[in-house]
Amino acid sequence: MPTTGPDDEARTLPAGTTPDALRTPCLLLDEARVRANVDRMRGHLTRLGVAFRPHLKTAKSLDVARIAMTTPAGPAMVSTLREAEYFAGGGVRDMIYGVGIAPTKLARVSAIRAAGVDLAIILDSLEQADAVAAHARGGGDALPVLIEVDADGHRSGVAPTDTATLLAIGRRLTAGGATVRGVLLHAGDSYALTDPAALAAAAEAERAAAVTAADALRAAGLPCPVVSVGSTPTARYARDLAGITEVRAGVFMFGDLYQAGVGSVAVEDIALSVLATVIGHQRARGRIITDAGWMAMSRDRGTAKQAVDQGYGVVCDLSGRPYRDLIVADANQEHGIVALRPGSGAALPELPVGSRVRILPNHACATGAQHDCYHVLDGGGRVGAVWPRIRGW
Amino acid sequence: MPTTGPDDEARTLPAGTTPDALRTPCLLLDEARVRANVDRMRGHLTRLGVAFRPHLKTAKSLDVARIAMTTPAGPAMVSTLREAEYFAGGGVRDMIYGVGIAPTKLARVSAIRAAGVDLAIILDSLEQADAVAAHARGGGDALPVLIEVDADGHRSGVAPTDTATLLAIGRRLTAGGATVRGVLLHAGDSYALTDPAALAAAAEAERAAAVTAADALRAAGLPCPVVSVGSTPTARYARDLAGITEVRAGVFMFGDLYQAGVGSVAVEDIALSVLATVIGHQRARGRIITDAGWMAMSRDRGTAKQAVDQGYGVVCDLSGRPYRDLIVADANQEHGIVALRPGSGAALPELPVGSRVRILPNHACATGAQHDCYHVLDGGGRVGAVWPRIRGW
Repeated sequence: MPTTGPDDEARTLPAGTTPDALRTPCLLLDEARVRANVDRMRGHLTRLGVAFRPHLKTAKSLDVARIAMTTPAGPAMVSTLREAEYFAGGGVRDMIYGVGIAPTKLARVSAIRAAGVDLAIILDSLEQADAVAAHARGGGDALPVLIEVDADGHRSGVAPTDTATLLAIGRRLTAGGATVRGVLLHAGDSYALTDPAALAAAAEAERAAAVTAADALRAAGLPCPVVSVGSTPTARYARDLAGITEVRAGVFMFGDLYQAGVGSVAVEDIALSVLATVIGHQRARGRIITDAGWMAMSRDRGTAKQAVDQGYGVVCDLSGRPYRDLIVADANQEHGIVALRPGSGAALPELPVGSRVRILPNHACATGAQHDCYHVLDGGGRVGAVWPRIRGW
Repeated sequence: MPTTGPDDEARTLPAGTTPDALRTPCLLLDEARVRANVDRMRGHLTRLGVAFRPHLKTAKSLDVARIAMTTPAGPAMVSTLREAEYFAGGGVRDMIYGVGIAPTKLARVSAIRAAGVDLAIILDSLEQADAVAAHARGGGDALPVLIEVDADGHRSGVAPTDTATLLAIGRRLTAGGATVRGVLLHAGDSYALTDPAALAAAAEAERAAAVTAADALRAAGLPCPVVSVGSTPTARYARDLAGITEVRAGVFMFGDLYQAGVGSVAVEDIALSVLATVIGHQRARGRIITDAGWMAMSRDRGTAKQAVDQGYGVVCDLSGRPYRDLIVADANQEHGIVALRPGSGAALPELPVGSRVRILPNHACATGAQHDCYHVLDGGGRVGAVWPRIRGW
């Protein structure tokens, strides 16, 4: 049993512990499902002829990263510099920090790079390019930069047809001694889709925008070795990735109810769940109370906007099989309020005080972030390992 | 500068650091506002003649607890056994664990009590009472129990008029060698109110239900020394607390936009904010992008149900003054999307890349939980201390 977990109990778990012996609430991870999800994505991208750069923001765990990455040194994508430092300490050598760079963070980026890590940054404005160029010029670090390009109006990025801005950014970076590594896009609006044809179209739009921007840079004599796209839905539904060099995705490793609502994972492939204990009943109102409130599940209610509102999660038995129509209908900080879906004809299961249940989360990134470690289920339904996870910035 | 913070940077902050020198995102706490919020609540409850038991689930910090508690030893309320262990380690000796007890947690409760802490538990069913009685009988720990009574149909508790169940629980506990400490209620439905008269009525209903249940226990010869009620809104709006011995409240210490929407705190009294850095713009769409996404703010969107939807938070300048109509309109994991409220006639502030802003949270409990420490602002706008906070169960 590894003893690296930050949780007091995790440090002293005896071998062969079963989930009914764990303190609750806690996070369970089905290792076989993670491996199957990774294998499926890797096979799909290999067939499409592109490299895979897993996004580690969902897992925030070196143990999971080693399953997801093509090699122990990467490539990988991170969402915070804390992640970059943590994964660098674990031997990852090829990373992109995927949040537009602020000038005050450049010293920290260069410190990570000075330890032998090829950490690249992203940006989408002339003011950032000038700050990076000044930093490169002053410090002798030829920072590799991916220019963020807007795939779908979701969040950030230069418009793919705004050639003037793309070239101005590229030229200022190059003139300052930074390195133009390529372009990066994220089709975040694909999260709002559910129709396979629309998802495939979003993937194609992301690809086309990336190639348009890359071609503009190359036509002007600027380098663009990397053309990076990705989101779990577009990665899953991409049919052709001509001109793309790598795809990024993260949440698919674990899956969640939101992605199941999009259609990018299946409910039975969801690897993450929260273990909870029944602590009370309000039988006249058809409610079961558990000790997994929003602190254990996160406040994410993303499925409220989807066709099927899953409340704060779907309630399963200890083997991971969902009870018919049973969801966490509401949550307080340390109380989950379990009830049948409105209009259900199912019977409320008995579940006396002390019973254990597992809850599938709406959003693996948000639920995982509420916990310090994974209790990793082996094929026999036992906790075979405890894997720490990090947080913070 | 204290060096107890878990954050790497917090350990090395030089004295007199100003917020513009901190890594972002991070949590800021205005100590003077916390003290004023506590003084106001304490004065109010003193005038009403009841003891104050602060709920430490919002702060999860011994430094904040010492401001909020009447004495360094308590009394206090906690939401997890991890909190109970942490505060016990800091000298708190009088606590209630405010989540219905599960039988598997009793050994841990008794271990905390064996270290000299008067830790009481709550329950609302015969099956829990039987488990506690068996534990008391077997282990020689006369566990003090508050019977949870339902104030308003919010979540848990025996109906205050269900005398038969109240007495059966009390008698089984007593027969087993546990201690009936009293009754405990939480008028959680008050969070949905905004009208001062309705809030005062909710406080009175909570009081009346508590007294009804306490009277029933006493009439049957059972002890009921403690009659405990509380929520931030009902504590704030209570006009008379005859028959009540103590009031609990927690989120009022920091305040948040949700409580401001209820009317139980003022926006200018909110002590908690998230410091963020501007990392980009989408000027054509009226958007400013910051590095405080939902990971820094939490996924809490509680104000969406109120009269004024504050998005993921209200954007302020470094001094804490809100920009007119500027909110975090949307959030991704590490991106905050700042925009004017729909229909606003205000101008979007310039805020170039690298600018710092402070964001008032929807929900102090949820936002605090995303961070490992508070950067505590002194009266001069400097970070005078770093206070750690705990998490987990």
